Order: sequence, then structure tokens, then C-alpha cells
Amino acid sequence: MKLRQINSVTGKRLSLEKKFKINLRPLSFYPENFEGAAGKNCENMIGGVQIPVGIAGPVKISGQFTAGNYYIPLATTEGALVASVNRGCKAVNQSGGVQTFCHNVGITRGSIFKTDGLKKSHYLKKYLSVNIEKLKKVAAATSSHLKLTDINVRIVGNNVFVRFSFDTDEAMGMNMATFAADELCHEVEKKTGIKCLSLAGNFDIDKKPAFLNFHEGRGRMVWAQVLLTQKVLESILKTNAVKLNSLVQSKCLLGSAISGSLAYNAQYANIIAALFIALGQDAAHVSEGCLGITTTEIIGNDLNFSIYLPDLPIGTVGGGTWLPAQQALLQMLNVSGGTKGEKADMLAEIVGAAVLAGELSLLAALSSGDLARSHKRFARGME
Amino acid sequence: MKLRQINSVTGKRLSLEKKFKINLRPLSFYPENFEGAAGKNCENMIGGVQIPVGIAGPVKISGQFTAGNYYIPLATTEGALVASVNRGCKAVNQSGGVQTFCHNVGITRGSIFKTDGLKKSHYLKKYLSVNIEKLKKVAAATSSHLKLTDINVRIVGNNVFVRFSFDTDEAMGMNMATFAADELCHEVEKKTGIKCLSLAGNFDIDKKPAFLNFHEGRGRMVWAQVLLTQKVLESILKTNAVKLNSLVQSKCLLGSAISGSLAYNAQYANIIAALFIALGQDAAHVSEGCLGITTTEIIGNDLNFSIYLPDLPIGTVGGGTWLPAQQALLQMLNVSGGTKGEKADMLAEIVGAAVLAGELSLLAALSSGDLARSHKRFARGME
Amino acid sequence: MKLRQINSVTGKRLSLEKKFKINLRPLSFYPENFEGAAGKNCENMIGGVQIPVGIAGPVKISGQFTAGNYYIPLATTEGALVASVNRGCKAVNQSGGVQTFCHNVGITRGSIFKTDGLKKSHYLKKYLSVNIEKLKKVAAATSSHLKLTDINVRIVGNNVFVRFSFDTDEAMGMNMATFAADELCHEVEKKTGIKCLSLAGNFDIDKKPAFLNFHEGRGRMVWAQVLLTQKVLESILKTNAVKLNSLVQSKCLLGSAISGSLAYNAQYANIIAALFIALGQDAAHVSEGCLGITTTEIIGNDLNFSIYLPDLPIGTVGGGTWLPAQQALLQMLNVSGGTKGEKADMLAEIVGAAVLAGELSLLAALSSGDLARSHKRFARGME
Amino acid sequence: MKLRQINSVTGKRLSLEKKFKINLRPLSFYPENFEGAAGKNCENMIGGVQIPVGIAGPVKISGQFTAGNYYIPLATTEGALVASVNRGCKAVNQSGGVQTFCHNVGITRGSIFKTDGLKKSHYLKKYLSVNIEKLKKVAAATSSHLKLTDINVRIVGNNVFVRFSFDTDEAMGMNMATFAADELCHEVEKKTGIKCLSLAGNFDIDKKPAFLNFHEGRGRMVWAQVLLTQKVLESILKTNAVKLNSLVQSKCLLGSAISGSLAYNAQYANIIAALFIALGQDAAHVSEGCLGITTTEIIGNDLNFSIYLPDLPIGTVGGGTWLPAQQALLQMLNVSGGTKGEKADMLAEIVGAAVLAGELSLLAALSSGDLARSHKRFARGME
Repeated sequence: MKLRQINSVTGKRLSLEKKFKINLRPLSFYPENFEGAAGKNCENMIGGVQIPVGIAGPVKISGQFTAGNYYIPLATTEGALVASVNRGCKAVNQSGGVQTFCHNVGITRGSIFKTDGLKKSHYLKKYLSVNIEKLKKVAAATSSHLKLTDINVRIVGNNVFVRFSFDTDEAMGMNMATFAADELCHEVEKKTGIKCLSLAGNFDIDKKPAFLNFHEGRGRMVWAQVLLTQKVLESILKTNAVKLNSLVQSKCLLGSAISGSLAYNAQYANIIAALFIALGQDAAHVSEGCLGITTTEIIGNDLNFSIYLPDLPIGTVGGGTWLPAQQALLQMLNVSGGTKGEKADMLAEIVGAAVLAGELSLLAALSSGDLARSHKRFARGME
Repeated sequence: MKLRQINSVTGKRLSLEKKFKINLRPLSFYPENFEGAAGKNCENMIGGVQIPVGIAGPVKISGQFTAGNYYIPLATTEGALVASVNRGCKAVNQSGGVQTFCHNVGITRGSIFKTDGLKKSHYLKKYLSVNIEKLKKVAAATSSHLKLTDINVRIVGNNVFVRFSFDTDEAMGMNMATFAADELCHEVEKKTGIKCLSLAGNFDIDKKPAFLNFHEGRGRMVWAQVLLTQKVLESILKTNAVKLNSLVQSKCLLGSAISGSLAYNAQYANIIAALFIALGQDAAHVSEGCLGITTTEIIGNDLNFSIYLPDLPIGTVGGGTWLPAQQALLQMLNVSGGTKGEKADMLAEIVGAAVLAGELSLLAALSSGDLARSHKRFARGME
Repeated sequence: MKLRQINSVTGKRLSLEKKFKINLRPLSFYPENFEGAAGKNCENMIGGVQIPVGIAGPVKISGQFTAGNYYIPLATTEGALVASVNRGCKAVNQSGGVQTFCHNVGITRGSIFKTDGLKKSHYLKKYLSVNIEKLKKVAAATSSHLKLTDINVRIVGNNVFVRFSFDTDEAMGMNMATFAADELCHEVEKKTGIKCLSLAGNFDIDKKPAFLNFHEGRGRMVWAQVLLTQKVLESILKTNAVKLNSLVQSKCLLGSAISGSLAYNAQYANIIAALFIALGQDAAHVSEGCLGITTTEIIGNDLNFSIYLPDLPIGTVGGGTWLPAQQALLQMLNVSGGTKGEKADMLAEIVGAAVLAGELSLLAALSSGDLARSHKRFARGME
Repeated sequence: MKLRQINSVTGKRLSLEKKFKINLRPLSFYPENFEGAAGKNCENMIGGVQIPVGIAGPVKISGQFTAGNYYIPLATTEGALVASVNRGCKAVNQSGGVQTFCHNVGITRGSIFKTDGLKKSHYLKKYLSVNIEKLKKVAAATSSHLKLTDINVRIVGNNVFVRFSFDTDEAMGMNMATFAADELCHEVEKKTGIKCLSLAGNFDIDKKPAFLNFHEGRGRMVWAQVLLTQKVLESILKTNAVKLNSLVQSKCLLGSAISGSLAYNAQYANIIAALFIALGQDAAHVSEGCLGITTTEIIGNDLNFSIYLPDLPIGTVGGGTWLPAQQALLQMLNVSGGTKGEKADMLAEIVGAAVLAGELSLLAALSSGDLARSHKRFARGME
């Protein structure tokens, strides 16, 4: 049986390669150039761990920046996840596809300046407001891919928190933002004589789940929706509009509210983690990508099902995107590289579509009492 | 230069193999049995992505369940991370090592029951309180590795949220908990006639950052601390007690407070993500593992530095722990398998020690103005 | 016109006096003994401010501890509030009255102990767990009206936060709790040698809106519900089940979620503030009393409407309850004094009923587009 | 003894009247025109309750809008509160007074529009952005005291939340904002054909403790600080810089963080409630006014002590400000009426100074172990 599986894994890979006229070989071998990571991604490197990649979909997307059918590569060890997203894609496709929207909020770096009291603190706030155009030039000089777009200040006693927002095109941009913020802080120190206590002061707020990012967004904001007909709800999802709507209200909204959660959803984290690992994104950003809200709206016997991801720090260049297997998967989705952020917008919308598919499928399974059963089927012997 | 790196990567692996008399070969090859994941971890599997693994440490740990020197395997694509943890380990070791504490809170599953009003809702609450011993037996019958330890109920109108807490020994236990909760819900439905709306109702609250888990804990709670002498602070960390203490107050506490964050720290998410991926844990749990608080206490010219991880869902069996490379790394740490949860307690303390090391190093770098510089050094060309 | 109003105010008071065979004269005069407050409620007293009191209701209550028809005294300066609650009472009464439930969670005091590190911190946690029976005796010795019911501990580095929970019968109990915690802290210091940094350490968490109290409750937890028929919804409330339900979902749940609020409701604060001031409660506790969740459930053409108040610190003795006008109003409601907390339970349920009435009326006005109109009608010239 | 107290209360009032050449008689009598409230502040009015008013201070303020010595009128029933604020004033004055800053953020009203899906939702967002100048005119037409300053939009599926921000001069402005938002919603409905689900949709977020207001501010943002010398810390406050600083870190920051609180302080709610009631403000706004952060900074043996109130909805006209006793107290502070908001700015700074005084005194008492003792002294027999 192991042989059959190996054949099957290779067979599925080859079939995708043929379909996309693309080389996915790095997913089945230890790639020659993988150890180049030692030079830039990982010190004291001793090799790598492999994370299984399964394919769901394709899912049909009609977005602001994306149109077509996309296969969803998920790097995961949680049995049932790929099957779940896959079922969601099927339901979505039979409903005409998923509609997506993306807004590039930009990445942030939030520094702290330390003053000797409120007067200086307010002086600094004023300085930053008056000199924003000059500071934009300072930032622009650090990279041709970076623009300072906004400065947001909060004063708490002797502490002045300064949240710099940047547009970093197709890069997730945290490194670029750090370098730019470093220059900005030096400039501010030089001109005001006020000392920067810390370049990174948690007002970013990077790699931490926080209401600030939930509210203002970070990276990309993404929305996705699908109109589910009664037929699709019943035949594919084994539920109906009233049941699914009631579940979303009780679980995603009320259940999250009483738990003090910033994630008003069922399983964004699962899909975000699997996509981020498969596509060379920073897995620590699961802490932000998991935020968001699932909502439903009954329309007769149909159901409008939508997801909202306010905090998606992603990129199509930099970080782990060049790694052989990850790069191959980015190319399969046609979201490798880019120049003005349009590939990152596409990637964001694909993430949105995948999250919607997974969310829909799990919620449907819960509403029909199928969760434990499907986990038993797919994950026998798992624990 | 590529050749040198490859040699270096292999060389470092072989040196660790020799040191631990262990086979780490799965980290340098596409392992034969990796595709067995197709049967249990991943549907529609087409292969795998490799995540670079670097080694930090060793770090000296004196814990409740752990004692000795441990190498920290980090699967990451973020340049500077391994080097950063490594420097933290060095500072920790020269300070006599890190002290760790672990408390097994257990895993939870939070279901929703739907009643016809407050009277029935309160009746259900009473039923659960009166019948807890019977329900413990129902749960115990689903697995010899699982015990129901507590039931926590919240009533909001017609919705009754029931948080079942389980001890699942050495497993992270979410699947076991789901199966047990399924039986418990059936039992409750049968005995009370009240319908379960959803087996998983976000009162768990699984794979979502939430104050409930921050407060009550989930999986393991871990604490770690080190007493840093003036000498270590100055020679290795290029800072001092006053500067580091001031930074932690302004950044980790105040900066997180004004951002509405549940993570009062600098970079738990980075280390948690890198460890979880390296060690076969569920990467979606980064959404929980990133929570926690870093604190410092000045003692003369020294500094007591401590971290607190309230929400660490981890296991030494199940999930992705059997995968070849991941399993090899678990064995290197001597935390593979186990019977009564003692290996998971050890793993939790190692995670705590690694998080402390990374946290310490980054905060020291920030307090001495070194962050941008070290990222430039390690991650040149990264984005 | 002023004369007519004066007559009308006096007339309404006299009519209530007659109905309840009670003396409400302190509401229309500067009461003789009011200045006794100088001795216990207020230092440097120079007199008092009058807050207008209006009467809504009666509202019919069927509770765990309360049964009958109750007039709701509201001390407020916000035009339209009394009228709004009044309309809610009418709708409730025509629906058979409001059903209420009350759970006495008890009051808390959360102290901080400072240790020299994690080992001592865990030692203290253990000490508190092992010696809880002894500590109950220490607490009981401070007052015959107080019982220590629980001790909850959280360790963050050198800080040990200890949340003592008390049952204080009919008193809100914050002062009693403070005195008892003082004794408990002395006992702990004496027996463990660990120093108490602060008797009140915000783990109470008193007079602050906090998820901890939202989750665990404080003072009394109260639930109230009413089943609204289609006829009542349409004739009195000018709305219907679908519209009201949709509004509650979008406003109270979703709107509060995106605002990061701990109050998932429309106007609990208004009614809580008006009742607390009228009835001699501590107005600073509006910061806690405002928390809670409004939910609805469509049942055919009817609507189950419910409110949940998790954090209601109230008492029928102590504080401002003895003040002449306030005491008269407590007596009107038959919730003055008490011995075992049963009067405070009643008061809590009356508060719950009033909150439900106000909440229902405002939400109905919003769902029919009437808010601005009714404010214009009642509050002409207000600002 | 009662007589002595009455004399004393009256005596203190007369002494203030003389000092300020002002009539405070409404504080000692049931004022003739009080029942005029029946026409605008309170329906079904039957009279009023008296809240004791004590005077603390004076406190010396050097603010952006305020300069001089101010007596603090506190309407409270909590023994020890006035004495506590009074002691704080004394410490502040001997340190040269309190420095205050005020920023008029403005009041908000957050409405909900309901679309048929994401496309329409994004269309509405765009419409609001493009037409903001036109909408400003619509708003301005509703009152000469109101200006629309900003529109902030969040889309969640079919729900579009629109937060209108207004400058309302010297009024707290919630009613004005409601009327203006009503017109704005009608305009939007007319021009876009998209229906307003609710004029008030909790994105305001009015009279609820919420991170959104904590972050963006609402009403006035106020900061206050004082530099405490070692002498003042020791002689008046019976503590020192290190102890007070340590307490603020452990209690106000860490204690609030682990409790999931939006109030990182000791007792803002107490002083806010007492001032709001004394000065005719809306007591339900205690739910917002209690938010904020207390911080300290050690400077040698001295301590910079500061408070931050991000969310202070206040006004010097409208609401209960005209009531006889309340108006007399506003006049005593010279903050009655106004035209361009300058009186409200002054009031905000006075509130800030009072909050600082109370906060300082309580924290000092806690740091020297005096809390229970002082409550026993002042509030004997209270509960």
C-alpha cells in the first residue's frame, strides 16, 4: 500500500506539472539549491524538514485583481484539512465562484521615542505632523520599492509611540520597513534631539494578535464571498441556509465574543498556516493572518457567505519565496515576483478564496454534525 | 560558494549526528517514508515543501521536568532568527542557565447547545454540574489517554456554551478531545433532550488568539527565567539592566497595551513558529502559542528576565510528529513518545527556554540600537 | 408652564406614595438628615447635587428571586431615557412579563505579592492552594457577613496575582472585601515571608471594564428574557421579529466586535447608571455594569429577546443606600436591607428587567428608524 | 453631632461662596427651578435624589487651556474618595502643580448600511470617500455648532459600518451628532439607494468600553503629569520613587493586562463618576471615561507621574449642565457655557488634573500599605 501511495503522490504531482506546464519536482526531492538558504534565511543550517503538501480545488475566483480557476496548495499535517477545503471549493464553484476584494493597507513599523515629559512628547507629535513630506523623502531614499504613506502617533507620558506605515509593493516588506524606520528614527533624533528608545516598539504591531491591526488592517485586507443556492447547500454541504446562518451567529460571533477572541471565525488559522508554509510566507504571521470575521446573510432559501481578513502580511518576493518548492508553487498560481504589488494583491485574493472554501466546509460539517466523523475518517490513528 | 555552504550544512548535520548518536539524515534527503503522510496527514498529497532548519544553542535548562543542555532546532526562513536565539542561549548559559516551570492545563473543546430559553439553559447548566462524574466516565471510555477534568458553562440567552477540559497525556489531543466531546454531547442530548448546535463552538477556543486562553491557559502553561549579571548584560548582550528593563516596560507592556494585543512580548511568534514546524506540531497553533508576557525585574546591577507562555498546545505523539525529519529532531531532544505526558512537559519547557533565549536576544539588540544592523548583516538581499 | 410641571412632579410623587404607602418626600426636598453623609460618605462636604428621577413601568417580573410588578426609578438627565424604558415595560408586560435569573458570583479583591523569582512564585501558589481552609477562617473572622469562596492565582515572573472571591451577603462588599484581603495578605506574609506589594492589584478587577469580569462575572450575574409576539412587536414596538433580530446581529454583535468592545449591547450603561444613582449604588461601577450581551432568537413570527449582565456589583445595604431619597426608592422596590443576600438578588433581577426594557425599546426604535425623531421629541433644546 | 455636621456643611459652602463670589445655594436646598428637568431631561419625573458633594483641592493647573488653582467638586458616596483626591492635590501643589494637555477628538456616531454583497459594500465606501465635502455641507446644515470632520468605514460582508466624527464645540454633542448622522444617512440612502439598517450601529462606540475609543479617542483626549520630588513623595505621600514606580508597573500595567482590562489605572472611574455627576455630565459615559493609562518614570530620586485619558465625552452646555447645583459648580470652575469649545477644553483639563490627584493618592496609599486603614478611618460603618 505504501507503493501505491508513493505512486499516487508522484502521479498527482506529474499531472499538475503537465496541466500547468510547470516543474514541481522540488516537491518530491531534496532540491539541489535548497541549501542556499544557509546564506540568507537560516544560520547554522543543518538541512530541512518536509511538510506534506496537498492540493485542493481548483476554485473559481472573480476578484478585483484575480480571475480564473486556482489550485490551492496546502502544507499541512492535519488530516481532513485538504479534503475540507476541497469540498468547499466544489460548493463554491457550483455557486458560480467566489468574489474577492483586496485593499493594500501596507506594512508598519512602530518605534518608541522617550522624552522628558508631556511637553516634549507633544512637541514631537507636532514635529512629525509638520515634517511628514520631508520624512517621506528620507524613507523613499532607503529603497525604490518603499513609500512612507502615514504616521500615527500616540503619547503616553514620556513615551511617544510612532507607527510608520509603508507601501512595499510586492514584498511583505517587514525588513524594508525596518531599514526605513531606522533611517526615519535617526532623522527624528537628529532634528529634535529626542532619543529613540526602540526601533520596534510593538505599536507595529508585528507578529502579535492585536485589536489595532484587526481595526486598521496590516499588509492586505481581503474580503471574499459566495452566494450559496439552496441546492448547493443541501446536495454538497448537507445543510441549509437557516442552519448555517444560525451556526455562524452562535459560534463565530457569540462564541468568539464570550471567549474574548480577535478571530471571529471557525478555522482561518488552519488555512493561513497551510498556505503560508506552502508559499514561502513567514509562518509567524499566522498570529496575524488568523484574525477576521465570517458572516452570513439569509436571502430567501439561499445564503450569502462571506469572510473578512483584515491583517494579511504577504509577499511574492523576499523571505522564503525563492526556496525551490515554494517558488514552484507560487509559479503554479502565477503569483511569483511582480513589480507594483499586483502579484501580492492576486496572492491575497487567492488566500481569501481558500480561506472562504475551508471556512464554508468546516461550518457546514459542524452544522450537519459531521466534524468528529470526518476527522475519524481522514485521520485514523492520528493521535 | 554554494558548495561550501552545502558542505557546511551537511557537516553541521553530521556533527550533530555524531554528538547525539542519532540519525538526522531525513533532514538532508527526501525521506522514503515521507509520503506515508498521504494516508493520514494530507489528502491529495503531491509532495512536500522543505523548510530550512538551523540549530541554536545548546541552552542549559534546569526545569521541573527537564535538566541538561539542549540544542534548539528552528525551521525558519527569517534570516537572523537562529543567530538571535543562539546569542540568547550564550547569555543564558553564562548566567547559569534557564529555570523553567510547566503546568499541564489540558486541551479543551467547547460545544454549543441550543435551548428554547433561559429556563432550559439553566437546567442544562445544573445537569452538567450534577452529572460530572458520569460524564467523566463517558469521556474516559473514548480513549485510555484521555480524562475529562472540568466543565465550564456560560449561558447567553438560548445558547449554552460548554467548555470541556481534558488531560490527554503526551498528545496535543485536539482530535481525541473532539471525539470525546462528540460522545459527551450525544450523552447530554440523550439525557436532557437539548440539542447540540455545534460540537465546536469557539468556547474552546482552538487556533484563535483569545483572552480566555490567555487567562485560563490551554495545553501547557510554561514559565522561564534567567538571572542576568551585569557582566553578561554588558559583554554578551551589549546593554545593561536599566536599559533592558525600561525597554520591556515601554515596548512589551505599554506598546502592547495601546495596540490592544494579547501578546505582551517581542517575538514569541517567531520562535514558536520555528519550533512548531521543526518538531511536527500544528503550525496553526502559532495563533495561540504567540500569547504571553515578558517581564523584567532589576536587582542591583543584575536583571531577572522572565517569560510566560499561558497557551501552548503541544504533543510528542500524533499529528506531524512521526514525519521523518520532525521525528529525528524530537529524538535529538529526547522528547519523542512518552506515556503520561512527561515528554510533552519536557518539550514545553524546552520551548519555554528557547522562547526566553530569542526574546532576550532581540530585546537586547533593540535596547542597544542593533536591530536594523543585524538584519542587514544576516539577511542581505532578503527582500 | 413651570407651575404645571412642578405640580405634575409633585403629583406623580404623591400618587406613588399613596400606591406604595411609602414616604417619597426626600425626593422633593433637601432632606434633614442628608448631611449625615459628611460623616461617612463624603469628606469636605458642602451639600449635594440633585439628579432628576423619573419613573418607568411597572414591569412584570417572574424571576428566581423576584415576582410581581415593579416601578423602575431612573435618575437621569438624558431626555427620552425614561420614556424609552417605559415603552419597553409596556411591550414586556403585554408579552407576559420578563423572566429573570440571578447568580451571586461574589465580590473580589486581587492582591499582588512580589517574590524573588519563579520558584518562590510557584511556592506561594502552592501554599495558597494547600491552606485555603485556614485562610477561609482568617477571612471569616473579619466579618460575619463575609465568606472567602475562592482563590485564583496567576504568576508572571516575580509577580504573583491573587484574586480572592468573597460572598458578602446583601452588601456590594468592596470595603468588607478590602478589610478581609488585608488580613489575608498579612497572614500570607507572616506564613510565607513573601511580601505583599499591593493589597489591590487590578486582578480584582474593580471599577474597570475587563474581560476577566466579563468571563468570570463579579457581583451578580443576571439574565433576563421576554418572548415577544408578532402583535406586540408590531403594535407597540413598530417593528417585527426579522428586523429586530437582524439589527441585534449587526449592531450588538458585529458592531461591538469590530469596535473591540466588552459591551455587546445597545444601552446597558444608560439604564445601569440611572438605576445605580437612584438606588444608592456606586456610580463608578457603571464601568463594570455596562458589560453584557443582548441576543435574539426568531421563533416563527415571534422573537425571544434576552439580555445578559455578567458583572453587576450591587448591594442593598452600605454605601449610599441609607441616603434619604435613595433609601426611599429602595423601599419602594422592597429591596432595602436583607440578611443573606436575598434582597440583593431581587435588586439584581429588577436591574436585569429594567435593562431588558430599555434595551428592547431602543433597539426597536432604531430598527424602525425612530431614534433621532424620539430624541428630538423628548430632548428639544437639549444641546 | 448632626447639628455640628450641618453647620459644617453649610459653613464650607458659604466659605466657598464668599471666596468665588458665587451662589452655591442650590447645593443645600431643593432648588425652585429643578423641576424644569421634567420638560427636557426626564420623563415621568417625581423629584430627585441628592448626591453628597465634597470639595478637594485647590489644585494648581498649568495647562494648554487652563491656568490657575481649581477646587474639585466630587459627588460621591464613597468614603475616603474626597480625602484621597485632596491629599493628591496637596502633593501636586507642593510639586509645582500639574501640567495638562487636551486634544479635541470630537464625538462620533457610527451607522450601519446593509447592502446585497461586497460589491455594493465597496461601492458605498468609495461613495463616502469621494463625496465627503458634500456630506460636510449636509452635516453643517443641521447645526451651527457642528462640523463633520471625518468618515471612517469598515466593511464586513453585507454590513457597512460608517463612523462619522464631529466637532461639536462646547457640547458633548451626542444629540447633535445623532441628528446630523440622521441627515447624512438619509442623504446617503437617497444618493446610493443603499438602505441604512441603523442610525446607531455600535461603531461609535457610545457608552461602551471599547478598544476603538481607547485607540482613536472620543470626545477629548487629556494628558496630565506632575514631577514629584523625593521630599513630596516621602513627606506627603509616605512612599518613594522606586516603590511607586514598581507598583504602577505591577498593578496598573501588568495587573490590567492579565485581567484583559481597557483601564490601565487604579481608580479613574471613581473620580470620573464623581466629577460627571457633580458637573451635569452624562453618568453613563463613566463606561468610557474610565479608560486610560497611568505611567511613571524614575528620574533620580524624583518621579514623573502621568495619566492619560483617551476617551472623555464632556460638555459645558446641554444635558444636565443647566441644573441648578450642577450649573453653580460649573460656574465655580469658570467652565460654564462657551462658544468654540474652549470651556470644554478647560473642563477636560480640570478633569485630567483631578484624575491625576486621585490616582496619585490611591497608588501612594497602596504602596505604603495604607488602603485598608484609610478606608476604615473614613468609612467606618459604611457596609
